[in-house]
Amino acid sequence: MPTRVAEDRTAVAKMTGMTETFDHSVYQRRLDQARETLTKRHLAGVIIGTGPELAYLTGSWISSHERFTALVIAADGTARLVAPGVDKGELGRSPVGQMDIDIAGWADGEDPYALATDIFGGGVTGQVGIGSSITADHLFKLREKLPSAQFVLATTVLKELFMRKDPEEIEWLRTAGQAIDQVFYKVPELLVAGRTEREVAADIEKLILEGHDVVDFIIVGSGPNGANPHHDFSDRVLEKGDVVVVDLGGTVGPGYHSDCTRTFVVPGAEPSADYQKFIPVLQRAQEEAVKAIMPGVTAEHIDAVARDIIAEAGYGDAYFHRTGHGIGLSEHEDPFIIAGNDMPLEEGMTFSVEPGIYLEGNVGARIEDIVVVTADGCERLNNTPRS
Amino acid sequence: MPTRVAEDRTAVAKMTGMTETFDHSVYQRRLDQARETLTKRHLAGVIIGTGPELAYLTGSWISSHERFTALVIAADGTARLVAPGVDKGELGRSPVGQMDIDIAGWADGEDPYALATDIFGGGVTGQVGIGSSITADHLFKLREKLPSAQFVLATTVLKELFMRKDPEEIEWLRTAGQAIDQVFYKVPELLVAGRTEREVAADIEKLILEGHDVVDFIIVGSGPNGANPHHDFSDRVLEKGDVVVVDLGGTVGPGYHSDCTRTFVVPGAEPSADYQKFIPVLQRAQEEAVKAIMPGVTAEHIDAVARDIIAEAGYGDAYFHRTGHGIGLSEHEDPFIIAGNDMPLEEGMTFSVEPGIYLEGNVGARIEDIVVVTADGCERLNNTPRS
Repeated sequence: MPTRVAEDRTAVAKMTGMTETFDHSVYQRRLDQARETLTKRHLAGVIIGTGPELAYLTGSWISSHERFTALVIAADGTARLVAPGVDKGELGRSPVGQMDIDIAGWADGEDPYALATDIFGGGVTGQVGIGSSITADHLFKLREKLPSAQFVLATTVLKELFMRKDPEEIEWLRTAGQAIDQVFYKVPELLVAGRTEREVAADIEKLILEGHDVVDFIIVGSGPNGANPHHDFSDRVLEKGDVVVVDLGGTVGPGYHSDCTRTFVVPGAEPSADYQKFIPVLQRAQEEAVKAIMPGVTAEHIDAVARDIIAEAGYGDAYFHRTGHGIGLSEHEDPFIIAGNDMPLEEGMTFSVEPGIYLEGNVGARIEDIVVVTADGCERLNNTPRS
Repeated sequence: MPTRVAEDRTAVAKMTGMTETFDHSVYQRRLDQARETLTKRHLAGVIIGTGPELAYLTGSWISSHERFTALVIAADGTARLVAPGVDKGELGRSPVGQMDIDIAGWADGEDPYALATDIFGGGVTGQVGIGSSITADHLFKLREKLPSAQFVLATTVLKELFMRKDPEEIEWLRTAGQAIDQVFYKVPELLVAGRTEREVAADIEKLILEGHDVVDFIIVGSGPNGANPHHDFSDRVLEKGDVVVVDLGGTVGPGYHSDCTRTFVVPGAEPSADYQKFIPVLQRAQEEAVKAIMPGVTAEHIDAVARDIIAEAGYGDAYFHRTGHGIGLSEHEDPFIIAGNDMPLEEGMTFSVEPGIYLEGNVGARIEDIVVVTADGCERLNNTPRS
């Protein structure tokens, strides 16, 4: 059975029936913070689609598809969850049922967009935040209902909420980090010459499920495959001295993700001279980037720290992706650690630091840890050896 | 292992590595039809996101996530597929590589929205069609690049293309229909008193995979669970005389779906009097709705035919969902067979006809077939017994 790599949290939740949530008071507190933000920013309201943003505010991973489902919060504090009527029972049993949210079910033939927008009253002209997951088919219909409103991205408006993790979230991300670390401690014994990447991945799948509820993805890139960061795994047979990039992630609890990469050498022979030459550079780049993290430093600065070290060693062209991505209820989210992102880091942000060096058709390596920004630096959530 | 119900085609494709496609000439023909439509409708262009619409036009199920990926077609015929640079190789090996589409890879730090919109030239003021799957986070950035354009839903503009299936598509939907029929022939022997819905579902999963590449969903709703159209399956033990709603779907070939429902009675006892009373009504409603299908008849008329029969028999409140949905590269798509949809049916449209009667907490039933509209009626793609 192939490893099923779920790209979309909504799909994963539906697949696994994930039902673990925080106490409803956690969601109620977040909802109240969202209301305060609306007031502070003079927004008329926000419309949040299904997916991680809705799960953050309500604990619900309800799916949407073509039947419109969204949480609407108006400036006066009114909150309404618009969903197909058949989902009303399930929502009532979720934390939503214990929060001050009106669950508005709609039947086929009714107009869910009217239901979503009538809490704003007629002729709203202010800004309305739109959740990042709302698709064009729904967005155009919301636009028809609110022709005078100014639509802005809710993710921008509420980014302090989504990006700064609260203690409950950090604890789950720490749990996720420890769970994937347990897998990585066992990876070296799987990397034996003569086995295929696919066989190794099958073993890893079982190990991930020992400490996670869901396997998000498995990358086992050996030899030249390690030079392709988009590779997952293949039938390539491991050879002695092969360099192998292993990048793994899974989901725990209410939907928090792990994501960690280590690069290994298959025992029995020396790895290539290229690898021996660049691996200390990569280790130093990752180490210095992590050391540079603290509140007030920009995301792009962290990217530059890693990139400059790699470029100065002559491998600039061999490092062609961003240095990191936020992580939480999404596998990839703000803040992105990338050139051009001048957002200052804040305490409670969680993201990956994952520089890589890739010599196409030859050999590649990547080292990745998840970190959480603390008052005076950061804490690594992954702690297996990096060498 | 739980049945993994994939809600999203993109996720499925990534999960399974689905690579089957039509010959590139099929996609080239569709692309040319899209261009003709743009010209005919005086559109400046369209921007199509990942998912079924992109797969229809290019054969590619490439995933997007936070890294923007889209096919852009300008009024002058220029076509460009904007995608992360790491995906460029894979795209080149897909049918896209043999079509007159420019594959424009972008690296982290570059601006994919500029890459997508600069083929329109500066200051475009006409209509630009936006694919239904494009999410708000990307859409707002496209809007910044094309401030004077009028965004409209591409699905509306190109709906003749997406909704009217070509012969190659109908052949795959016929294959899908036959594959799920083979499963339904074997379902009666699985429905034995003393087994749980979950055990039955596990057997069904294996049967679906005999003729499909992916299991889309499995519903086994026995007794009162059959009265909840949102139920999947549970640990409820089947009893003699239980009414069981079985609704199954899977994916074949380049991504075409099956979707069929039958209602069974567990042998050993008579089903409830309620069921015996309403099942002839439901059978007649489904039969008459199918008979009413022909080009020129509206979608809402088909819904009304089924609904009126059920309502006249006194079960109007027990039928609370639409009568059907289009099907193809999506499980649910236009045309929706629902009150208020005055779209005339056309030859080549494919959709479900699936009325149901649900007595809450008691018993339910649904009968569903996929049909394709023909010159003078329709062809059912599911043909197992309905009684």
